[in-house]
Amino acid sequence: MKTERKGQHLVIGKRIPRVDASEKARGEARFVDDITIPGMLYGATLKSPYAHARILSIDTNKAEKLPGVKAVITGKDMIDSKRCIFSEIVPVWEDKLPLEIEKVRFIGDEVAAVAAVDLKTAERALELIDVKYEVFPPVLDPEKSMEANSPKIHDKDSNISIEIHYDFGDVEGGFGQADYTFEDSFRTSHQAHCCMETHGCIAEWGDDGRLTIWATTQRASSYQRELAKVLGIPYSDVRVMKTSVGGSFGSRMSLHTVEPICAYLAKKAGLPVKLVYNRDEEFVSSRTRHPAIIEIKTGVKNDGIIIAREAKVILDNGAYNDLGPKVLHEVATLLCSYYKVKNVRVNGYLVYTNKPYGGAFRGFGNPEVAFAVESQMDIIANKINIDPVELRLKNASDPGDVTACGWEITSCGLKECIEKAAAAIGWEKKRRRANNHGVGIAACIHWGGGLRVGESDFCIAVVEVNNAGQAYVFTGEKEVGGGSDTIITQIVAEELGISPKVVRLMPLDTDVTPSFLFAGSPTTFVAGGAAKAAASDAKRQILEAAAGMKAINIKELDILDGYIYDIRSHMKLLPVSEAAHFSYEIMGIPIIGKGCFNQGPTQYDMETGRGQLSPTYSFAAQAVEVTVVPENGVVEVLEFACAHDCGMGINPTMAEGQIEGGLAQGIGYALTEGLAFNNDGKALNSSFTDYRIPRAKDMPKKINSIIVETKDSKGPFGAKALGETSMVPTAPAIANAIEDAVGVRIKELPITPEKVVKAFYLDS
Amino acid sequence: MKTERKGQHLVIGKRIPRVDASEKARGEARFVDDITIPGMLYGATLKSPYAHARILSIDTNKAEKLPGVKAVITGKDMIDSKRCIFSEIVPVWEDKLPLEIEKVRFIGDEVAAVAAVDLKTAERALELIDVKYEVFPPVLDPEKSMEANSPKIHDKDSNISIEIHYDFGDVEGGFGQADYTFEDSFRTSHQAHCCMETHGCIAEWGDDGRLTIWATTQRASSYQRELAKVLGIPYSDVRVMKTSVGGSFGSRMSLHTVEPICAYLAKKAGLPVKLVYNRDEEFVSSRTRHPAIIEIKTGVKNDGIIIAREAKVILDNGAYNDLGPKVLHEVATLLCSYYKVKNVRVNGYLVYTNKPYGGAFRGFGNPEVAFAVESQMDIIANKINIDPVELRLKNASDPGDVTACGWEITSCGLKECIEKAAAAIGWEKKRRRANNHGVGIAACIHWGGGLRVGESDFCIAVVEVNNAGQAYVFTGEKEVGGGSDTIITQIVAEELGISPKVVRLMPLDTDVTPSFLFAGSPTTFVAGGAAKAAASDAKRQILEAAAGMKAINIKELDILDGYIYDIRSHMKLLPVSEAAHFSYEIMGIPIIGKGCFNQGPTQYDMETGRGQLSPTYSFAAQAVEVTVVPENGVVEVLEFACAHDCGMGINPTMAEGQIEGGLAQGIGYALTEGLAFNNDGKALNSSFTDYRIPRAKDMPKKINSIIVETKDSKGPFGAKALGETSMVPTAPAIANAIEDAVGVRIKELPITPEKVVKAFYLDS
Repeated sequence: MKTERKGQHLVIGKRIPRVDASEKARGEARFVDDITIPGMLYGATLKSPYAHARILSIDTNKAEKLPGVKAVITGKDMIDSKRCIFSEIVPVWEDKLPLEIEKVRFIGDEVAAVAAVDLKTAERALELIDVKYEVFPPVLDPEKSMEANSPKIHDKDSNISIEIHYDFGDVEGGFGQADYTFEDSFRTSHQAHCCMETHGCIAEWGDDGRLTIWATTQRASSYQRELAKVLGIPYSDVRVMKTSVGGSFGSRMSLHTVEPICAYLAKKAGLPVKLVYNRDEEFVSSRTRHPAIIEIKTGVKNDGIIIAREAKVILDNGAYNDLGPKVLHEVATLLCSYYKVKNVRVNGYLVYTNKPYGGAFRGFGNPEVAFAVESQMDIIANKINIDPVELRLKNASDPGDVTACGWEITSCGLKECIEKAAAAIGWEKKRRRANNHGVGIAACIHWGGGLRVGESDFCIAVVEVNNAGQAYVFTGEKEVGGGSDTIITQIVAEELGISPKVVRLMPLDTDVTPSFLFAGSPTTFVAGGAAKAAASDAKRQILEAAAGMKAINIKELDILDGYIYDIRSHMKLLPVSEAAHFSYEIMGIPIIGKGCFNQGPTQYDMETGRGQLSPTYSFAAQAVEVTVVPENGVVEVLEFACAHDCGMGINPTMAEGQIEGGLAQGIGYALTEGLAFNNDGKALNSSFTDYRIPRAKDMPKKINSIIVETKDSKGPFGAKALGETSMVPTAPAIANAIEDAVGVRIKELPITPEKVVKAFYLDS
Repeated sequence: MKTERKGQHLVIGKRIPRVDASEKARGEARFVDDITIPGMLYGATLKSPYAHARILSIDTNKAEKLPGVKAVITGKDMIDSKRCIFSEIVPVWEDKLPLEIEKVRFIGDEVAAVAAVDLKTAERALELIDVKYEVFPPVLDPEKSMEANSPKIHDKDSNISIEIHYDFGDVEGGFGQADYTFEDSFRTSHQAHCCMETHGCIAEWGDDGRLTIWATTQRASSYQRELAKVLGIPYSDVRVMKTSVGGSFGSRMSLHTVEPICAYLAKKAGLPVKLVYNRDEEFVSSRTRHPAIIEIKTGVKNDGIIIAREAKVILDNGAYNDLGPKVLHEVATLLCSYYKVKNVRVNGYLVYTNKPYGGAFRGFGNPEVAFAVESQMDIIANKINIDPVELRLKNASDPGDVTACGWEITSCGLKECIEKAAAAIGWEKKRRRANNHGVGIAACIHWGGGLRVGESDFCIAVVEVNNAGQAYVFTGEKEVGGGSDTIITQIVAEELGISPKVVRLMPLDTDVTPSFLFAGSPTTFVAGGAAKAAASDAKRQILEAAAGMKAINIKELDILDGYIYDIRSHMKLLPVSEAAHFSYEIMGIPIIGKGCFNQGPTQYDMETGRGQLSPTYSFAAQAVEVTVVPENGVVEVLEFACAHDCGMGINPTMAEGQIEGGLAQGIGYALTEGLAFNNDGKALNSSFTDYRIPRAKDMPKKINSIIVETKDSKGPFGAKALGETSMVPTAPAIANAIEDAVGVRIKELPITPEKVVKAFYLDS
């Protein structure tokens, strides 16, 4: 039989079913709450009822005496983890203890925890813990919090956690050349991740003093290191085990309080403990998207070219930092890299308030930035009478560009995305109709090859091909629902020239699956790159065995569709399984390929904002058609066209899944989502009854997902990240469409019916 | 800090606790019967009530209709696995179907099986299966079975399954030179393994057509291949998973009927099935030790030198072959290699009878041989008036010897074993006392580096050292209770220069743990050798990282006690964990060592008996003191001295455990064990009430275990096999001590009180 690789892919670009489809469809996937360990206790945490208060005393005596209670802990049972040295770039945990000792800083801040034989007993014990507080007035508004005389939330002179001031080009000169200057202020909301699986974990200490933890994390290796630091033990004494994860969206990126609390409970009780949050706890504790106030001033020439930009950003940090400093950095550098503008100044402030704290969330600051920049793009277009699509195309980045803060644009399909999204929505035909129908468009740039944060975006993979020719992939990559296991499977299968049916990912276990330190959404790029390199190394070993068996020069051999063939004659020589069998059972050599993806050290400077952030960038444009009822303010999203430059669609079905999923989160961000607080700092809508995420019926009837393949030279088979861009342009596209439909410009998220009605009837 | 390797071992030779001690002591080890899979059914098999009958019909209609029954199968649901090509050397399964179709050949032969929602329903369904038989007279006596006119058990002209005729040197000439000729006939018994865990498995078929099986096997890789052949599927479609195993002693060496039956049930039911034997089933189905009739004629010179030997061996095969042909071969070659005799002839016959069939059992034919040879040694010594110890020393093998059939003796501590055992028991002082006390001694040779059977005794290991310097060992070795996991751990720790506490064995899973094809008891030698090689390869990679970090030539570095040190200055440079971290997280190179132990192809010829059987040989001598009450025939074993040349005691505590455990089995073999059958072929004592294995109180008060370290050049750190020699000389040592005590020679096992009394009062 003859065969030949003709440049085409057999596995990449194919719509193979998700490798975890069967176990998830059949209910066999094991999430943390499905796992039970013999003797396991159940944990619960006591939370502050006050947004801002000093802890005077905590009396746990009665709780400890309740039958069935096996451990009660407070912060005094823990090491002072604030002193641990964390990454200087991301000083997570420098202002937070797992259980607070001196002060509480938001309603829900944890002060004590109980482990008992069942959850009911644990919860009853919580009621028996007597905490005395000295209550302070809460600081809820970030702008007021910045004022010099505001009550101080931490033991610092100011409630400004960090501030940054980036300045590129000649900002004054730029504005001097501008024909128009636009100044607008935008506000975004307190979006919650709303993962279907709440946070939780099971912690068990071994006889050997090692901690094994089954946790709802999205990044096992980093998590292992962070948890070890907070517990004050070597990271090799923490073993993180695989579970299925029910969504992450950034909420499982940094260590949560739940894990150290659970570990301390298990240690004190001497038994394994499960601690899983309920939905109410999840809403107030899962590190929301930071609400942002973005004041943006843009100088534009007559022809629509943006010549200068100045922005002031205030991120509402909530009570603690978590990843806030890094989010602020991203917001600022995005403002400096969006479109071709070279003269940019950004002043950014991360401000403590007595509310649940922010963290990583899909887009990592970008949806906030995009809402401001892309809304203003339409304001500009309308004012200077250029079509919004044309205005974007005029200013869009091109391959080879270097942005103001030093991002080197390589593969770039931004213009193609804008053109294709506009064409797909029927832009020319539908724009400026008068029947309360409108179309809008928005675009974005996002890091497409990971986000360098300290030692992050480093991945090792091992591909073992067993004696039957089946491939097993060891990588620290953790499937969180986005389909990364399937993508890695396809990459390895393609590289090895075998069927994805004989490629399997090994269960994640930090003891044996190698490190994967990541940030952002670069699984395909980073873990995929490592897996491809490892598969390539394994392929060489297979071909070496085949060359030995057949006495042929290895350079004359290749693999396709499970067969080793002669490159010159195109003749199939033998199946991979036979070569593998020969290597193991005659030569005695296991086939084990090693691969690494290493971006090298961080190349940007948080102080100045300068430097390459990611090895490559992804782009997208989304266009939408809406209809608005001015009388009641109801916005109906009719259709979306989403064009995404993700380099290469490794699996188009899953890429579309990412786009549609992100779109849903973007629609929620645009129209309905956001935590609301009363004057005491209490969340008013911490349930799915009151916090409205889009349901199936809220989604547009038609979603046209378009993959723009720019084949990035550094990505595995040309692929770049996709998961985050899918929600970045959604909200401003809708805001722009609303303007097109009924002529009102809403600058604050969510765009509720009340705001639309008010703008339509009162402001205009 | 200074350090230096001074030739001494830090881990080898140390009495570290078993690595599985904690989980077993705490009841956390998971045996097959501890495992439950959602939706799992329970299986049961229908067995023949006749020892010899034709199956006329099997009606399963009523059973199938019983509520709760999910699958009923007979042999007709299976492929004709007799046609599958098995190893030509070990033609297991060539005469057996998992469920018989045409004939049944022993009471307990399986003819049908049921899977149901619970065991009670499955057993009720068995009662509803109507099997019609045409009953034949059973053939129970192997000597009668050999006769030409005996009823034929298989569709063959003779009930002799195989026969072998080995002839070395000049046998007639040898006997011509002999001053004395001895002719004796010995009979050994039908010993059952009596593992605490009965046979069983769980079989589950995946959506992908692959079978996953949790089974009580002792050799996963060979088992995977055998099961696949019997099922007619590629071996890559069978995945064998780790379980704890409650003893094996050879009973789990070849595939059992339970596994293919269970696999077929699971396939037909479309659900996982558990099939576990009860104790009664275990007794009749677990492949016993073959009862042997050994007629042995030995020519001896005046000075005690053995000049010629001739033997006829009849092994009672039972109904099917299993490993019987290979056992017969071992029996014959042992008779040709025992002591220095060069002129040897052996005629061996493996004879079918209508009884449960034999298979592999600790010693693999050697306890049978030893009972004959070592009993006769004392008969000779007494006759020609040489001390039995001296007679053995005169004829014992030396290093450099090549036996009659071609075994090359390298390391050999046989003489030292004999001397040390005799000295330890107080031979000179206790011999020939008159108070019904007696001492006896017996010695043995056994393959010490594995037993080449086709592709067996080949092992690959992978040692992965993770980024924290912890080592993980991937090997197909399966702990069956003997402590091999601990031995492998010590070997890897010693080779890497790290603590055994940071070495862990990965769970066995034939998909990812490499092949280990073995026979005999060579785990230390074969798997240990592979693990040592893999650890050595990993060590090189660690040193490469350290050399890179410290800019030192790798040749100047070594590892001891977890630290890399400079060989010249003896200065500790850095911990292994740091070098590992550097390799992974700076160099991006995982540390993965590969190692293989490969004996190469079989070097002996089953036809002639000639050739090297094993890369090395182990030796032992056991001396015992007994007291005998002639009036009731009761033999009390007072004390044992066991000297074993196992090359090197990797873990002396575990070596002693092997010796003491084997001794118990040997004492049972000598005095109490053996299945008995009535005239219908029904086992009369298939329960622990009636089948007497030694209990703690039956063991001698004193056991003196002596390890003779000969440091074999091919074994890992000098080690050779030990597990089997521990029971080989036990029975003849006891028989010889009884003779010393009361002057009677019992030539048939077990040596029951009845036989002693009869010999004392009637025969003498």
